[in-house]
Formats: sequence, structure tokens, C-alpha cells
Amino acid sequence: MATEEGVPVSADDLAYDALLEWIADEVAPHVGEGRVADYIPALARVSPDRFGMAVATIDGRLYGVGDYQERFSLQSITKVFSLALVMARDEGSLRDRVGVEPSGNAFNSLVQLEYERGIPRNPFINAGALVVTDRLHTLTGDAAGTILDFLRTEAGDDTITIDGAVAASEAEHGDLNLALAHFMAAHGNMENSVDVATDHYLRHCSIAMSCAETAMATLFLARHGVRTDGTRLLPVLGAKRINALMMTCGAYDAAGEFAFRVGLPGKSGVGGGIVAVVPGRASLCVWSPGLNRHGNSVAGVEALDRFSTATGWSVF
Amino acid sequence: MATEEGVPVSADDLAYDALLEWIADEVAPHVGEGRVADYIPALARVSPDRFGMAVATIDGRLYGVGDYQERFSLQSITKVFSLALVMARDEGSLRDRVGVEPSGNAFNSLVQLEYERGIPRNPFINAGALVVTDRLHTLTGDAAGTILDFLRTEAGDDTITIDGAVAASEAEHGDLNLALAHFMAAHGNMENSVDVATDHYLRHCSIAMSCAETAMATLFLARHGVRTDGTRLLPVLGAKRINALMMTCGAYDAAGEFAFRVGLPGKSGVGGGIVAVVPGRASLCVWSPGLNRHGNSVAGVEALDRFSTATGWSVF
Amino acid sequence: MATEEGVPVSADDLAYDALLEWIADEVAPHVGEGRVADYIPALARVSPDRFGMAVATIDGRLYGVGDYQERFSLQSITKVFSLALVMARDEGSLRDRVGVEPSGNAFNSLVQLEYERGIPRNPFINAGALVVTDRLHTLTGDAAGTILDFLRTEAGDDTITIDGAVAASEAEHGDLNLALAHFMAAHGNMENSVDVATDHYLRHCSIAMSCAETAMATLFLARHGVRTDGTRLLPVLGAKRINALMMTCGAYDAAGEFAFRVGLPGKSGVGGGIVAVVPGRASLCVWSPGLNRHGNSVAGVEALDRFSTATGWSVF
Amino acid sequence: MATEEGVPVSADDLAYDALLEWIADEVAPHVGEGRVADYIPALARVSPDRFGMAVATIDGRLYGVGDYQERFSLQSITKVFSLALVMARDEGSLRDRVGVEPSGNAFNSLVQLEYERGIPRNPFINAGALVVTDRLHTLTGDAAGTILDFLRTEAGDDTITIDGAVAASEAEHGDLNLALAHFMAAHGNMENSVDVATDHYLRHCSIAMSCAETAMATLFLARHGVRTDGTRLLPVLGAKRINALMMTCGAYDAAGEFAFRVGLPGKSGVGGGIVAVVPGRASLCVWSPGLNRHGNSVAGVEALDRFSTATGWSVF
Repeated sequence: MATEEGVPVSADDLAYDALLEWIADEVAPHVGEGRVADYIPALARVSPDRFGMAVATIDGRLYGVGDYQERFSLQSITKVFSLALVMARDEGSLRDRVGVEPSGNAFNSLVQLEYERGIPRNPFINAGALVVTDRLHTLTGDAAGTILDFLRTEAGDDTITIDGAVAASEAEHGDLNLALAHFMAAHGNMENSVDVATDHYLRHCSIAMSCAETAMATLFLARHGVRTDGTRLLPVLGAKRINALMMTCGAYDAAGEFAFRVGLPGKSGVGGGIVAVVPGRASLCVWSPGLNRHGNSVAGVEALDRFSTATGWSVF
Repeated sequence: MATEEGVPVSADDLAYDALLEWIADEVAPHVGEGRVADYIPALARVSPDRFGMAVATIDGRLYGVGDYQERFSLQSITKVFSLALVMARDEGSLRDRVGVEPSGNAFNSLVQLEYERGIPRNPFINAGALVVTDRLHTLTGDAAGTILDFLRTEAGDDTITIDGAVAASEAEHGDLNLALAHFMAAHGNMENSVDVATDHYLRHCSIAMSCAETAMATLFLARHGVRTDGTRLLPVLGAKRINALMMTCGAYDAAGEFAFRVGLPGKSGVGGGIVAVVPGRASLCVWSPGLNRHGNSVAGVEALDRFSTATGWSVF
Repeated sequence: MATEEGVPVSADDLAYDALLEWIADEVAPHVGEGRVADYIPALARVSPDRFGMAVATIDGRLYGVGDYQERFSLQSITKVFSLALVMARDEGSLRDRVGVEPSGNAFNSLVQLEYERGIPRNPFINAGALVVTDRLHTLTGDAAGTILDFLRTEAGDDTITIDGAVAASEAEHGDLNLALAHFMAAHGNMENSVDVATDHYLRHCSIAMSCAETAMATLFLARHGVRTDGTRLLPVLGAKRINALMMTCGAYDAAGEFAFRVGLPGKSGVGGGIVAVVPGRASLCVWSPGLNRHGNSVAGVEALDRFSTATGWSVF
Repeated sequence: MATEEGVPVSADDLAYDALLEWIADEVAPHVGEGRVADYIPALARVSPDRFGMAVATIDGRLYGVGDYQERFSLQSITKVFSLALVMARDEGSLRDRVGVEPSGNAFNSLVQLEYERGIPRNPFINAGALVVTDRLHTLTGDAAGTILDFLRTEAGDDTITIDGAVAASEAEHGDLNLALAHFMAAHGNMENSVDVATDHYLRHCSIAMSCAETAMATLFLARHGVRTDGTRLLPVLGAKRINALMMTCGAYDAAGEFAFRVGLPGKSGVGGGIVAVVPGRASLCVWSPGLNRHGNSVAGVEALDRFSTATGWSVF
């Protein structure tokens, strides 16, 4: 579809349904590969043979294949929304509290945090997302609720909710996040109590949404900051910055490989979901629970790789 | 120039000369800021008050401002060309020898190299570039000469050459690169002798070119792999991969901030130059010798930031 | 006093009082140097111009100089006693939970803990002492109380107690220890709840004793495991092992320098106290609140250096 | 032999021959355990079933068992002698160039060296020993020759020599040491050329001596600095300092365990030898080529553990 000269296919001309069917066929051998996240029991129960993918175009069309309407646990994907909601209110307030560089370490590592005295390397590692949640909570009084409201509105479905069983399971196995939060508190980088900030963080990570809903909720990044209702959430530069962060830091310590293969800003979660943004064109969400050793969905990366190669919609 | 909706300016409509003049005015207060690289005497001698910028469009037009025709030491910028020249010949041969992830450390760090047993994190840190040079030397018998030939051809000027004084000065102060190379040799990750590989590496880093010449020589990345003479150096996917690596790893340990501010694949050198690619549209080169603490040109980053914001040509 | 041939002075022949007076004079210029620990307000209030030193011989004599009867906050010194009390009950139970190697890092570092998956490098860094406290609590049901009882008995004074103001202040600023404890809990290396283990740890570190009392309470290590009442707390090998750990790990990340200068097993605390053991001869305690950058008492190290040099009682 | 009260056996009363025979029997099951060093072919050829042990008393008696007269490659053991020979000439000159702390890392690690800007943590890791050799070469004009002369004199045998095959093999596989040396040179911590310093380092590590000879050559540390001929090599404090460094840093990253088990200053080499010092009494050397994962002789550690436990000659 993309020409040999690298000219991307026009968004109007794309045969979305056929393309998604072809991708589903292509990645079928990879569905079930990898390991379902098992650090909490509630996630370990998900069947590994699921696969769904959705494309939402900036003019409001939605296409999907497979289990694209089944809800899954967003996990780290919500870090994109919490960041956007803080930046919409007070971007400057994060400047001294969290960096914008890839970490070179695992998402839950404390090593870098110690060397850099409690300042997380970027907002998408767990420590950084805790700071962002902490800030959002200060700004709104209800971090998790603010994120949930935003997602319901953008996806147009009020039944979207926090999965209570996942949230409870996260809380029971939350020692690593508590360690990160206490470490940052020790360095003066938490505004709210560790317990409150961690609780809101774990709860918004436990929001469950489908590929269709998630793709729609991410459209503001493809529309350079404009929400579904046409109002502006972020200035053009704000959307650009979040897309840049997704490109350099969105896929844990495999962000480089994701950029190399897919070439789109993306953010993965250990629930098996990945969102990706084609600026000016569309947003994508793919879901398949089997994870590679970096915590990214095996079939999800394969699907996005094929999508960007076939359409020429890589930003590169 | 970019609309508030984030729609980029068309390459045909852009008033290049006026834009470049405006940028030169805007960044003038930053020219001279930072520190000129002083780790070798030959670089320390350059006057810090230089500034030049050039834009080469994929259809062959060239625009420039300031000292855009003055030659400077390319330094790390040549890592892009050596990588492309290996990938053009035998991409697979790098797979087990160098990674594609941002390093999270300084460009000359040995720490990551030790943890990962002699495999550099990416081809743009010094260790990775030494491996690429080593491979290119095996493939061609003359790594530095192959790069020089390519640059002369793409820039259309046979007077481009290796600056002998810089190369000699580099060799005199080459202990850190020798340490990296011996460390990799100890882990079986060098094909040629340490002395030969390091010599070719230091020599191609000592090539001197102007902004105009460098922008032209980088056009193949904007043209998805096609050279100045219309022949293909790399497949579309190869050019995409190099652009992706420049985005995630091109600005030392400030790659995240570069993506965040500029939003274009880029590669900086401690000579004060930075190249950037606007896929499908143009390639840019800016030069000003004053470096920030990450080793990137202060005025150069400012200029590219203004360029991408004004044109909307960020990939995000 | 020690001959030029390095033959140590006999314990019977030593003119203790004159020696201690001489040492007090010698180190007087250093008293007040360094910084009083200020990470909790209750410690920061101590006057920096205090200096006391006591020697307790294995046959029961006690000598002192300066403020040797004034109580101070033992802080990390209690780590020696908690370790001895676990080893007296069940040495083997620590084998898989804490190492015996110097850490090469600061006492409160998380870096090594992450690389070694929640197993502290030794029992004298904070993480290791938390594990030891956790184990002692499981074995006795009251870790802090068990340590307090032991110290009262050995020092022969029931008025020794936990300083409530220090303990409360520690708890208020306990984020770093909570981070360590949660991190170990995440790796399955805590038996009791993080809150309980951390509370007992902070409380036993808040015990206040004088140099005289502390020297007497440490005599069991000079007597190869035998307590004040003649009963055996530890086998000869157990006492040897604790002495060895004090030598290699007792002075935070300056253990090497302490061995180099003093040449005796020792353990310092940020309250400004240091205990040292002369196996088969005596135990020493010195106190002066000003700390060097490693957290060891400046005047305390100077005093012990002079003591071991003058007597030839270094183990080397 | 040591009483239950921990009183050490008198050096005059010890039945050395019977003790050594008993130890040889006890450790026989461990001889052949572990792996012979295989990083250079010349070392890998040694038979793993060798075991020898020698005791030299300060009054000149020598006792031995097994292969105690067979020569083996000293390797890192020579680091003790090069350090003593520099300290005898100009101790102060090392103060700013090498530390005295245990490293917490493997003997050939570059990580700490980078964090601490080219200053090795102690003189017994490879980087530190390279600095010591470099300094000795400046002071004497022939570092390796100076060490060889000293060892021949102390052991009383002029046939002791550098094993040329080992030295050549080391040089062929010397990339890691060259990396360390170039790294330090880059930080201004080498006085001679990297090639010269590394050559002398590899050559003195290739000296071959027997347990008997090595124990005799180490006696100056048991005699608080006095050589075989009665002249003083080092002041009492100098000998104390080397013994302290051997205790905290002498057994690679297992120094803590060695202190914990053996309780004597010691230095191991990957040739399978270990020397240990009983200050004021004797020096020991044991040899058996099978190494544990830290690079220390398995049977050697077992033998020294039994020796110190049986005699009560641990310094603790």
C-alpha cells in the first residue's frame, strides 16, 4: 500500500477493514506467544488467546477487528491521560519534578531514581507516573476520578469504570510502587501522602476499556490537542510533547525497538494493550495479553509494525 | 506559519529565506552561549560566535543563513553516515553486535557496556559507532575512505576532506575511545584490531563540512533512502530505522529533550553541528560551536526548535 | 607505648587514665569538626562540642574521659546487638536473607538492593538491619524490647531507655527506610509487616546510652561471646563472625579507611558514637557528634586511631 | 586446639606438621572442586588436583604439606608486594590516585572506576594494581624487575622467575586490562604509557613461586614490616595498613566472606594461591587451582578456615 518511494497512503483511500483483517491473519501465529502479566492474580487470569485492534480516524470514523470491543486492563496506558490532564492544567509544575529522557532501565527500577535524587527520568516509568498522579491529585482533588471522567467523555461511554478486583489485587501487591513513592517522598518529591498518591495511581491503572474506546480516547493526540467535542485540551505544542515522550519513552526499555519497528508514538501496558498515534491522521489501539520480556504485547507490536509498514504512516 | 490546528506549512509555500533570517535573529542572543568542546586542542580553537543554518529540500533546493558555507568538524554526525553505509551493505551483521535502545548514560560511558557484556546500547554512542566503523572496515577495507567518498558525492564537492590537525589531536587524546574498544575486544565484539578500528573512527569523525554540504549529504534520509543521483542507498524501511534511531538516540543523553522540543530525527556532534531530517520534505543542518552540558549546540537546538515550531514540520 | 617492633602493650601494664587524657587533648582540636546529623530534628539539637571515651576491659575494669557518662543516641550501633541476638537464637535463618560483603555504597542505598533482588549486602547497612530486626521480631515477638533488655542487663542500668522524641522524629522522617522495607517486601524478604518491622527498627536505633554503658554492653565481643554474667551468648565462632563483619562493614562506606587507620572491628552511628572491639582485651566506645561525609564521628575516628596506634592493639 | 574460651594456641606449642596433615585430609574432598582459571590458555593447563600449604613462622621455621614446593602462577598475589614496595619508597604518592575501600564489584569492573572518575577503589582490584605498578615503575624504572628481586631475596632463591608462557598468554588476552589502563589514562591517572604499565603489570602477575617461597616472602607483614635480613621495609603502621587492606579488599568481592570465615588478612590469586598473615606469629600460603565463582581457591579457603579455627589465630 505504501509506495516503494515511501509515500504514505492517503487516509481517505485506505481500505481499513481489509487491512485490519489482513493484519489479524498475519499476527494470528503470534497470539498466545509471550507471558500474560502474572505479578497480580487478577491480571494472570486473562486468556492469552485474545487479539483485537481498532483504528479511529481524526474525522470520527472507527474500524476494528477481533476482540476490539472487549475491555481489558489499561495499566500503564493511563499514564498518557494523567500526563495530558496535568499538562492541560499546569504544565510548568512538572518541570522540576520529572524529566523527559528515556531511562535505559526497567519501568520499576529504583537505580536511576537514586542516582538522580528522587527525580524520575520521565513520566512513563512508574516513579514518574506516581509524580504525575500526585500532581493531578493536588490540582483536582481526585486524580483517578478526573482520569475516569475524561476517558468516559472521550470514548462516549459512561459504563467505563475502574476494575475493583484488579485495583484490590494491585493494592495487595503494591510494595514496589510504595517503595518508589516513599523514596521520592524522602527526597521531597511528593505533595500528597504516599498512601493517597499510590492508591489513586493503582486505581487509574485499573481502568478497563476496549480497543475501540481507547483509540477514541487517544484521538486528541492525533488532532494536535483537540478533544472529541472540538474543544482544545492542549496547545499544539503540548500534544507534540506528549507524542515525543511516547516515542522516546512509551514502550518501557524497548522504546528504541518500538520506534525502530513501528515508527509511531505509542504507549504500552502490561494488560497487553498498546495505543499508537499517527499525528494528523488517526489513533490506534491493539490488545493481546501475551507480553515479551520488556512488558510489551507480542502480537500487539507485530500488528502495529505491519500497520505502519503497510500504510507508510510511520512518522519517519 | 503552522496553523493553530497544527497543520504543517507546505514545503512549496514556505518562505525559506525569510524564515532562516528570522531564526538567525531569534537565536543570536544564544550564539556564544555554552562551552566550545575542549577535550582536544584542535576543537577548542574554534571561535564560539559562529552560527550557520542550511535547509536542503528533497527536490534539490538549498537555502542558508549566516556561516552556512563555513566548514566545521562533523564529529559524531558522521556516525549517521557510517551506519547507513553498513546498513546498505549488510544490515543483519550488526544485529548481535549493537542495540537500538537509548542508553540513559553519557555518550562515552562504559557502565552500560559492562552490564551488557560488551554490546553497545545503540550505534550513536561512541562504543556503538566503533562497532559500526569496525564492521564497515571489514566490508570495505577502508571505513574512513568509504565515508569520505560518500559525503563528497552527496555534497558534490571533492575538496571535502579529513582535517588532519583534528584527527591528530583526537589520536593524541584517544584514551577513552581506546578503553571502549579494548573493552569490546575483550568481549569478542571487534573484528579488526583495536588500533585500526579506532584510527578509522577518529578519522571519519574529523571530516570537515559546511552546513550546506551536510544538509545535502543527509537528504537520502528525507528521501526515504534515495541518493542525490536518484539511486537507492537504503530500502524505505532502512531509512525509517535510521530516522527512528536518530529520534531516540541522536542527541546523546538529551535525546528525550530534543524530541520534546524539536520533534525531528536529529544527530548532534561536539563540533557544534546538528543535522535533522524532515521525512518526505527536507534535511537541515545547523552549526554553532557553544555546547550545553549534554554536548549539543545551544544555539543549534534553539534554531531547530524555532524551525519546527514555525513550520509545523515536527513529525509529531 | 607500642614498641617499634610492633609488640602491643600488655593490658595489665597500660596506664589507661593517662592514655585517655592524652587522647582527649590530642583530639580536642577536632571536637566540633564535621556536621551533626540533621536528617531528623531531634538529632540536630545535640551540641557538637561533646567528646567522651570509655574503655572496658575483659576483666571488668572501666576507664573514661570527658563526657563518657552522658547518654547519646546509639543509632546504627544497635545493629550490632540486634545481629548478635538473632545469631544467638538462630544464625542459620539469616543465611539466605542477608549477605556478609561490604556494599561499596552509602548505608541507605537502594541500588545494590535492586541489582541483588532484595537481598541486602550485609547486616549493617539499613536494609540488612531491617531484615535482622524483622527476624528478631519473629523470634521474640518484641525486637526493640529484646534489644533494650539485653543492653540494660549488660550495662547494669535499668534506666537505659528508648528516647521517645528521637523515635517519633525518626518515624516522621522514615520514608527512606520505608522505601527499603517495601522494596524487600516486594522481593519476599520481610516476615512481618513493613510498618511493624520499621517501627521496631527505628525504636531500637533510638536507644540512648553513655560511652561507659555502651563499652560494657559490647564486652561480649571482646570476650569471644561471653556475657557480663559469665554465660555464653554466642559460640567463639559467632563472636569472631560479628567482629569480622564490623571490620569489613562497620563504618558505612568508609570501612576500608577505618580498618586502615584504626585496625579494630568497629561500628559507628550517626549519633556520633563508635564502638570498637579489641578481641581478648577490651571494648571501647567513643562519642562526639560531628560527623564526616561518610557519617562517622570525626573526633571519634581520630581518638580510636590514636588509641590503637599508641597501644599497638590493632588486630593487624 | 584453640580453647573454648577463644584463647589462641601459642606459636611455640603448635604441632605444625600434625595440623597441616589434618588439614590436608580434611580438605581433600574439596581439591578439584571449582574451575581452573581459563581466561588464558597458559593457566587453564594446570591440573586441578593439586594442593599444597606452607606456614612460615616469624622466627624462621617453615612447615609444609602436599605440593607446597611446587611453583604456581602468583597472579594477583603479587599486588601485595608491588604495593609494599611503593609504600616503602613513597606512600604519600598513592594517596590521590587510589582509594582504600572495598569495591563491592568484581576485580576487573569498570563501573566504579567511571563513577569515581578514574580513581580505583583500592590497590587490589586490577585498576588499582595498575596504578601501583605505574607508580613503582616511575620510582624504580623497572617495576616487574623490582618485585622479582624482592621476592627472590625474601624467599632466598634466585631461580624464581617470570613464567614467560603465562606472560605472553596474558598479553595476548590483555584487552580488559588495557581498557582499564586507557580509561585511567583518559582521567590523568597514569604516569607511564599504557603499554609499559600494562606490560609490567602482566609480567609481575606471571611470577611463579611455591607455597613455601610465597609464605617466606610474606613474612615481613607478620613481622610488622621487617624483612628476612632484619632490615625494616615498612614502618609498623605501613605493615598494619597493608594487612588492613588485605582484610577488607584481599579476596575480590568475597572479602567479607573471607574475613567472616578465616578472620585473617589474605590475598588470593586466580592461579589458585592464597597468602594469609597472622600478625606477630606467622604467614601462610595455600595453593589449589580450582576456583569458586569469586575467583578464590575452593580448597584454599577451606584450608585457611580450618587453620584459623583450629589454632584460634584469627585476628578476631
